[in-house]
Amino acid sequence: MTQSRFAPLPEVPYYAVVFSSLRTTSDDGYDTISARMIELAQKQSGFLGAESARDVSGFGITVSYWKDEESIRNWKSHAEHRIAQETGKTRWYEHYITRVCKVERSYSLK
Amino acid sequence: MTQSRFAPLPEVPYYAVVFSSLRTTSDDGYDTISARMIELAQKQSGFLGAESARDVSGFGITVSYWKDEESIRNWKSHAEHRIAQETGKTRWYEHYITRVCKVERSYSLK
Repeated sequence: MTQSRFAPLPEVPYYAVVFSSLRTTSDDGYDTISARMIELAQKQSGFLGAESARDVSGFGITVSYWKDEESIRNWKSHAEHRIAQETGKTRWYEHYITRVCKVERSYSLK
Repeated sequence: MTQSRFAPLPEVPYYAVVFSSLRTTSDDGYDTISARMIELAQKQSGFLGAESARDVSGFGITVSYWKDEESIRNWKSHAEHRIAQETGKTRWYEHYITRVCKVERSYSLK
């Protein structure tokens, strides 16, 4: 139960996309599209999991994990995701940073 | 102002430590030590910045950025940080995962 918010720990190396963002105050469909994007990402080839937290000020970090760079490129250019990305730029985010990383080692409490 | 929660965008490659965690309900000095660790990390050689968000359920993600793996190792073995890590294991976290990653590319909204 306590571990449901955590993504799995695949064997390294794999990839992480760290998306840090500050939301605007505009809602404007964000929750619906955000949930849809998670659902859609889970269906993509190479998707390994995701973790997400947003605090009350609207600042959040979402990390999605992928098998390789090709999976990340495919997801970035997915038609429905592209529309969401455009809406994000114009409506939902004051600012964001995306960092694509190679996970080299990992460990957990238990 | 809106960008103050974001870490800088140094030239790649650099390193990211993604620490996802679920807090226990025990407070027990967490806020004080957590703030102290951020203050202390900022003084370490090779520290490039950090981003952090925790939601109301107690699930949070902190990403700290470092020049190289040596800086990460030094910070992990820092005496005061080691005490905090031990207390974290026994008191503050239900669960956590740490992933050490090499940042290969990054971009931002603006």
